[in-house]
Amino acid sequence: MSQLKEYSSFKHFLVTSPSEYVAHVEINRPSKLNAFTEEMWIELGKVFAKLSHDAEVRAVVFSGAGDRAFTAGLDVQAASQGSTVGHNGEQQDGARQATKLRRNILEFQDCISQIEKCEKPVICVMHGVAIGLAIDMSCCADVRICSRDAKFSVKEVDIGMAADIGTLSRLPKIVSSFSWVKDVCLSARNFGADEALAVGFVSRVLETKGKAIETAIQLATLISSKSPVAVQGTKELLNYSRENTVENSLRYTSIWNGAMLQCDDFKTALLSGLKKTKPRFAKL
Amino acid sequence: MSQLKEYSSFKHFLVTSPSEYVAHVEINRPSKLNAFTEEMWIELGKVFAKLSHDAEVRAVVFSGAGDRAFTAGLDVQAASQGSTVGHNGEQQDGARQATKLRRNILEFQDCISQIEKCEKPVICVMHGVAIGLAIDMSCCADVRICSRDAKFSVKEVDIGMAADIGTLSRLPKIVSSFSWVKDVCLSARNFGADEALAVGFVSRVLETKGKAIETAIQLATLISSKSPVAVQGTKELLNYSRENTVENSLRYTSIWNGAMLQCDDFKTALLSGLKKTKPRFAKL
Amino acid sequence: MSQLKEYSSFKHFLVTSPSEYVAHVEINRPSKLNAFTEEMWIELGKVFAKLSHDAEVRAVVFSGAGDRAFTAGLDVQAASQGSTVGHNGEQQDGARQATKLRRNILEFQDCISQIEKCEKPVICVMHGVAIGLAIDMSCCADVRICSRDAKFSVKEVDIGMAADIGTLSRLPKIVSSFSWVKDVCLSARNFGADEALAVGFVSRVLETKGKAIETAIQLATLISSKSPVAVQGTKELLNYSRENTVENSLRYTSIWNGAMLQCDDFKTALLSGLKKTKPRFAKL
Amino acid sequence: MSQLKEYSSFKHFLVTSPSEYVAHVEINRPSKLNAFTEEMWIELGKVFAKLSHDAEVRAVVFSGAGDRAFTAGLDVQAASQGSTVGHNGEQQDGARQATKLRRNILEFQDCISQIEKCEKPVICVMHGVAIGLAIDMSCCADVRICSRDAKFSVKEVDIGMAADIGTLSRLPKIVSSFSWVKDVCLSARNFGADEALAVGFVSRVLETKGKAIETAIQLATLISSKSPVAVQGTKELLNYSRENTVENSLRYTSIWNGAMLQCDDFKTALLSGLKKTKPRFAKL
Amino acid sequence: MSQLKEYSSFKHFLVTSPSEYVAHVEINRPSKLNAFTEEMWIELGKVFAKLSHDAEVRAVVFSGAGDRAFTAGLDVQAASQGSTVGHNGEQQDGARQATKLRRNILEFQDCISQIEKCEKPVICVMHGVAIGLAIDMSCCADVRICSRDAKFSVKEVDIGMAADIGTLSRLPKIVSSFSWVKDVCLSARNFGADEALAVGFVSRVLETKGKAIETAIQLATLISSKSPVAVQGTKELLNYSRENTVENSLRYTSIWNGAMLQCDDFKTALLSGLKKTKPRFAKL
Amino acid sequence: MSQLKEYSSFKHFLVTSPSEYVAHVEINRPSKLNAFTEEMWIELGKVFAKLSHDAEVRAVVFSGAGDRAFTAGLDVQAASQGSTVGHNGEQQDGARQATKLRRNILEFQDCISQIEKCEKPVICVMHGVAIGLAIDMSCCADVRICSRDAKFSVKEVDIGMAADIGTLSRLPKIVSSFSWVKDVCLSARNFGADEALAVGFVSRVLETKGKAIETAIQLATLISSKSPVAVQGTKELLNYSRENTVENSLRYTSIWNGAMLQCDDFKTALLSGLKKTKPRFAKL
Repeated sequence: MSQLKEYSSFKHFLVTSPSEYVAHVEINRPSKLNAFTEEMWIELGKVFAKLSHDAEVRAVVFSGAGDRAFTAGLDVQAASQGSTVGHNGEQQDGARQATKLRRNILEFQDCISQIEKCEKPVICVMHGVAIGLAIDMSCCADVRICSRDAKFSVKEVDIGMAADIGTLSRLPKIVSSFSWVKDVCLSARNFGADEALAVGFVSRVLETKGKAIETAIQLATLISSKSPVAVQGTKELLNYSRENTVENSLRYTSIWNGAMLQCDDFKTALLSGLKKTKPRFAKL
Repeated sequence: MSQLKEYSSFKHFLVTSPSEYVAHVEINRPSKLNAFTEEMWIELGKVFAKLSHDAEVRAVVFSGAGDRAFTAGLDVQAASQGSTVGHNGEQQDGARQATKLRRNILEFQDCISQIEKCEKPVICVMHGVAIGLAIDMSCCADVRICSRDAKFSVKEVDIGMAADIGTLSRLPKIVSSFSWVKDVCLSARNFGADEALAVGFVSRVLETKGKAIETAIQLATLISSKSPVAVQGTKELLNYSRENTVENSLRYTSIWNGAMLQCDDFKTALLSGLKKTKPRFAKL
Repeated sequence: MSQLKEYSSFKHFLVTSPSEYVAHVEINRPSKLNAFTEEMWIELGKVFAKLSHDAEVRAVVFSGAGDRAFTAGLDVQAASQGSTVGHNGEQQDGARQATKLRRNILEFQDCISQIEKCEKPVICVMHGVAIGLAIDMSCCADVRICSRDAKFSVKEVDIGMAADIGTLSRLPKIVSSFSWVKDVCLSARNFGADEALAVGFVSRVLETKGKAIETAIQLATLISSKSPVAVQGTKELLNYSRENTVENSLRYTSIWNGAMLQCDDFKTALLSGLKKTKPRFAKL
Repeated sequence: MSQLKEYSSFKHFLVTSPSEYVAHVEINRPSKLNAFTEEMWIELGKVFAKLSHDAEVRAVVFSGAGDRAFTAGLDVQAASQGSTVGHNGEQQDGARQATKLRRNILEFQDCISQIEKCEKPVICVMHGVAIGLAIDMSCCADVRICSRDAKFSVKEVDIGMAADIGTLSRLPKIVSSFSWVKDVCLSARNFGADEALAVGFVSRVLETKGKAIETAIQLATLISSKSPVAVQGTKELLNYSRENTVENSLRYTSIWNGAMLQCDDFKTALLSGLKKTKPRFAKL
Repeated sequence: MSQLKEYSSFKHFLVTSPSEYVAHVEINRPSKLNAFTEEMWIELGKVFAKLSHDAEVRAVVFSGAGDRAFTAGLDVQAASQGSTVGHNGEQQDGARQATKLRRNILEFQDCISQIEKCEKPVICVMHGVAIGLAIDMSCCADVRICSRDAKFSVKEVDIGMAADIGTLSRLPKIVSSFSWVKDVCLSARNFGADEALAVGFVSRVLETKGKAIETAIQLATLISSKSPVAVQGTKELLNYSRENTVENSLRYTSIWNGAMLQCDDFKTALLSGLKKTKPRFAKL
Repeated sequence: MSQLKEYSSFKHFLVTSPSEYVAHVEINRPSKLNAFTEEMWIELGKVFAKLSHDAEVRAVVFSGAGDRAFTAGLDVQAASQGSTVGHNGEQQDGARQATKLRRNILEFQDCISQIEKCEKPVICVMHGVAIGLAIDMSCCADVRICSRDAKFSVKEVDIGMAADIGTLSRLPKIVSSFSWVKDVCLSARNFGADEALAVGFVSRVLETKGKAIETAIQLATLISSKSPVAVQGTKELLNYSRENTVENSLRYTSIWNGAMLQCDDFKTALLSGLKKTKPRFAKL
């Protein structure tokens, strides 16, 4: 499949459309295990910001090109030459260095958070090496699935730092056991597909990368066949609920649906149900 | 068993007392798979508000009458004739329609939330069809168990809307895997008893509806044999903690127990422990 | 192993060092199933406050001495003679009694919370009887593991009170299923190692207490071999995230790492990685 | 003016309509300085709940009948005979008494909070004696004005209790100086109209009760002449903002206005502006 | 003064530097009372984003060009032709219109919020007409001052809408009296300089626009002479505190200053104090 | 008056009792303008922790000894020799320095916060020089009054740092105008008694220090004559409300008073009112 025309200017990500209303985004640097440079995460942010408002897209599959890795995370070699996470020659005092580092971290976080902010559901498929930034990014996705060969690690403590691009902020909210979260984050040990499934980090494990991609595309296609008003509202309300009290969430929901129930999709869905036809919903 | 006298005026719910201090509430419209009309959810709210302050009740079992369904959710036919979730003839602008819809949603939510606000523990038993509103309601209960034949679905996206009566606000807080929550809410797919157990949505699966009801009544009876001050405080403090920081919860707990430790139940429990007799606690 | 010199004044806790930078704290009252008196929990608070700032310690193992119990919880006999949780002779009105009780609860909570506030990771090993206060304390630890013979219970409702030292505030945030949490807290029923693992309360089960201690020490030793800046930051950020929105956590993280990335550990870790040597990090 | 027909069943409150879309609610027990009995506050809640959804009402003026008092607060004599805030004969332990008191307080609070929850703006006019419950109620209103003879006091500490119907929860959020709030709440001292204006408790002081009522009706009439979508949205968004972060409030606002800008009032207002005519807005 | 070179590409805003480290931003459309078009608010966001990280700038003065107006707010004529706040021909259902409006509002808000997010203090000077968007923008500034001829109004209800670009989210948090806030927001009435000062909306009133600009520049120059680490930290911490509990703010502060006290400015300031010289601080 | 016996071991604070149930705490280092060393703030924390639970004390007056200053804040000379806020010789990396600084700041904050946590109302009297730490401390008090000669300044930016002991966390919550708060905190300019009164920082200004102390003692005596249950509850509930939503505060209040209304003070106050005698309340 060829790059979607609208996304052809992106260099590091291959964006194709395997079925109607579905976009497939692939990290495209397989020769380096899809490791990220600064240029790449800036582009990643732009890809997902564009998908968020693209009326031709109703669900997104996110994966890594090649056989060996979803992504090996940050390209540490590139990073140590750049200014992002290290000291860089100039003699500044600690406060000024902290300010510079803080700004860099915030910009990096903002790029990655675009995956979470994307109004359309994102299904992340992981295979092979999936460490460091791989965890940060996948935590932003809505659904996580993997192939049996996936090898995960919250790797950051092994390079002398606490993870700061999102893993520590999101992981405790998306899996079950806080004891397990602490275990893998403090020890940086590897864990595999079965353990990831058992704790709820992924919700399905497939035999091969191919099968996992296929499954993700099927799920994305199913979701895309439904009312985009209903689907995008469901994503928004679930994300809101995760971080607000039940009472606040109920109130927010009532205002959201006060507007959203004024759509034709409700009628369309009911009619299609009666007529046993496939409903067609207007763009969003 | 016959309807408890105090609850005999309720038309859609059968309220009986299978053992001392235990109330059993059954949705009583089996011919329509226990589907809900507006009249029913208003009554539901009243039933649980009454149970909340009824000193004769210390634990509640909540289930659906008949063999086929806990509940098939909203009676869509009735709803599409009424005013609750659709456009209804009059030509109002979008803002005025939104206001009307918002008020309706808030009233509907308030009725269902009475299950959660009930001061006594509620054990929800699900069997057969348990979709849509079934999930909203069961999320308000304290303990969820089901029979092996239970078929669940967060069905709302299939009728063109995001669930707005509580599922999206509560589900992320009561089960383990956010990936799984997104999966079932975005796809509206069915899931069964084993999957519900694996992710922690229910805490026990029994072979038949009969066994599940029996188990629920045993648990309710056990809970009812304990100090109502201890039990009701435990429910309140757990619900509070779910949505507050540990620090706030500890402070709240200290004030709660500042009053609640001034009960005779403490002594009663200790004495019964020494004498090996069954303790009797005063009403609450 | 003998008591660490710095901790030799503590009477109820044995503090040893099984490997470099690792401290092992044992509740040392095996003849009474390690049941706690007021003097003990005050001392416990002091032990962990000291460990928190002790630059010689980078990870802590916490367990109970003897074969039979991690701890049977509060020494109820001692408590009923003291002033902590009962009426005590003097004729005070309900408000004044409530004030006294509130102050006592807050002081008790503060001691136990020192385990959570300890800047170094704490791995709690549970075996045999582990009820009441055992749950409160272990919920404060970072990683929980147990031996197969562990018998747990949130026992408080059986003595006529809602648990008030932390279980009800922390348990809903560290395990998966809210239905299960309500079940065990409202019924006070026992549960074993396998159930604890299934719901994520513990992250590993070992065959014997000895194996569990050995495993915990290995994990603590592994963690201690890593950058203390990275490890302690990871603990802090995970605890922060559990109770804050993703957005707040990301912001907090950027400020934290603005300072913390100015450490030499980053370089040390990279160099050791290249040279295949064991890194040595400065104290913290 | 005579009682509005729809409100004629209310015994303790006179509800009239001094101008189009304006309702005037008067506490009607001048012989007892408008002191409140339980029956009265229950009725008060119903009056404001009804006004909230009454499409004929767009603004409410709230005042007390007679020359001497807005209200002297709780009718202490009545209260000391009833069950609300005292011990009442039956020998219950402290926990059970606390439960009963807590339920009573919550019900009382709920009635008074209806003033705040009323979707239409409420302008409270205070004169003469305005103590205790007078402060609780006026804190729920949107705009507070008074006549020069008003004599205010947060009186509760003088009868041996902390105010629990809303003053202590709302006063710190509606006036300027926390030092002043503490001063008047801890000392129970009187303060007059000028002091109330200086700290921002009231926003206008008029010479007489008559003038104050007149001014309030003018303001209510002005507000009622504007788009009810705009006015009710403004009230809702200001109340929301008071208790949420700016970021949350902006997000909430965007969803609210996503629906509310779909009204005809926008066009109506613009056209009237061009034509210099008085706009007429549809009901809400 | 001529446009700062770095800012010369901006068309609608004049950016000059009246003194070292001070930038002066003027809304530059005096012929239209500085009314805003969409192009202008997008540019405004960019100006303040640039100032935020510009090491040559330590304080910003923000005002409107011309004699007559700070700004008359939204250019309603332009807006009613564009797509921002109206219906625009295409026949979309209410949900899809709401989505479009929500996105537009969020983008508009984001541009204006750049004033608040700017790391450098912003002093807003208002004169003449200052209505609608004028209030939204000034609420984002740190210090507000005005000339005696300023005429303010929260004008939105008069055009049939609740203000949605920030006034309702920020005003309750920056002035004293909630009664006054409700009064001016619900009535859309004008208020002048003295009233603005009395309620704390502005902190100083000067006789003429010229004097007000002069005063603002003096204050900006004074602030710019101080440690930028201290100044920017003070802005950040005050904004954080406004929306967080004291406890959270203290913790946040301790982490912030853990890094920020590692600056040379501390020493520089102390030395200058001893030597009575003007301190020179490194850029930030 | 001589030091209260129970407080005679304190070296830097004079604690006397000017009337029944009133304690007067004076900072006692007039020769150095009452500037604070580390030893002093540690002692300050202990003084207020002791007062908090001292049943003989029902209200506290806090002031500075001597004619010239409430306090000139931190003893900068002492501080620059110690380890609190500076670099101190040892060559540690930035992360380790930040950790040390963070711990020091937290300990300092904890001492000062004891004033706020003291269960009894604290009336702070300021005169003469009142800068830096003077503002931090007075923000913790409940009521602030001053003499006409008071000269205030949030001085910290002038020594190259953002205030970190509480001013920036508390000041925005206790005074009216956020514009004014930013003005004085960013400019470090002096302000006097009248300005402090106008913005609500103090609630009364007296002619001389003597008069101010006298007034404070009268207020403290008045407060001490009332029910300590009512007074301490009022303080607690106001502090809680400042930082929680109205809804949370109402709930918290209902639980608090569920216990607190079970006091005899209610009856005592009513009876004294009828008999026109001075009520005597039991200790708390």
